Amino acid sequence: MRSLANLISILKTKNLTVATAESCSSGYLSYLLTKTAGSSKVFKGGIIVYSLEAKNKFFKIPYPLLRKTQGVSSEISKTLALGARKIFKTDIGASILGFAGPEGKKVGLVYIAVANKTGVICKKMVIKGSRDTVRKKTSFLAIKLIYNKVVSSL
Amino acid sequence: MRSLANLISILKTKNLTVATAESCSSGYLSYLLTKTAGSSKVFKGGIIVYSLEAKNKFFKIPYPLLRKTQGVSSEISKTLALGARKIFKTDIGASILGFAGPEGKKVGLVYIAVANKTGVICKKMVIKGSRDTVRKKTSFLAIKLIYNKVVSSL
Repeated sequence: MRSLANLISILKTKNLTVATAESCSSGYLSYLLTKTAGSSKVFKGGIIVYSLEAKNKFFKIPYPLLRKTQGVSSEISKTLALGARKIFKTDIGASILGFAGPEGKKVGLVYIAVANKTGVICKKMVIKGSRDTVRKKTSFLAIKLIYNKVVSSL
Repeated sequence: MRSLANLISILKTKNLTVATAESCSSGYLSYLLTKTAGSSKVFKGGIIVYSLEAKNKFFKIPYPLLRKTQGVSSEISKTLALGARKIFKTDIGASILGFAGPEGKKVGLVYIAVANKTGVICKKMVIKGSRDTVRKKTSFLAIKLIYNKVVSSL
């Protein structure tokens, strides 16, 4: 995937580091970010907050908000991206939240957020396809969003 | 993959939960553990400790040991599996550490550890193949090891 190779290359050149906070993708974004050899210069770590308890524990998301939203909202995704950046002391924090399905009214609804020193952006999208497709496509879209955020900040 | 489906099924039936701590696999094991719909009943979360700083921060591995071992040893993998179980308050904790390569003398050397209430086991292996093969094969082997640990404890 060209944009992944491009992203890692530009991050290395600019000495920028990344951390993640993932829910429905459950590690797939972090796996992608480390596909290239030498990615330890860029990727520092991530937290997989698959449960509401984990979202509360690591990112202090209040339980009433978690219960109301099932842990999925623009606000929560931004908090996770900002939090990942802070916890791992990286230049960039990225988060993925959503409903991977296959059951439920909101299947395919995902939020991707990317934070850097200039602030945080969040994209809300609906991804069509199987559970696996939703998780993988969202992870690839997060790569693009990180790339755009990095390039726009240079 | 039959053993993955078997594992999730048996964990659901027995009401057992899992958490992870991953280094070289960087989320791939956690991605596998959530491939099945409804896996949120089983998988609670994970920490991707790709950097030495993250291994120290989340699992209190001392820096002298991290520097001496490059963050990869039987002792560290056990600490990570036990720690994941404790941090996420799950029945089972699983960890993966290793050298995915493609460069370096120890490429393919990996440690997988699985902890439950009876203790912790650790397997040291050398996996042949590309960087991606090492990461994926190790994750699938971790699934098997969790399965064996669960079945042997029933």
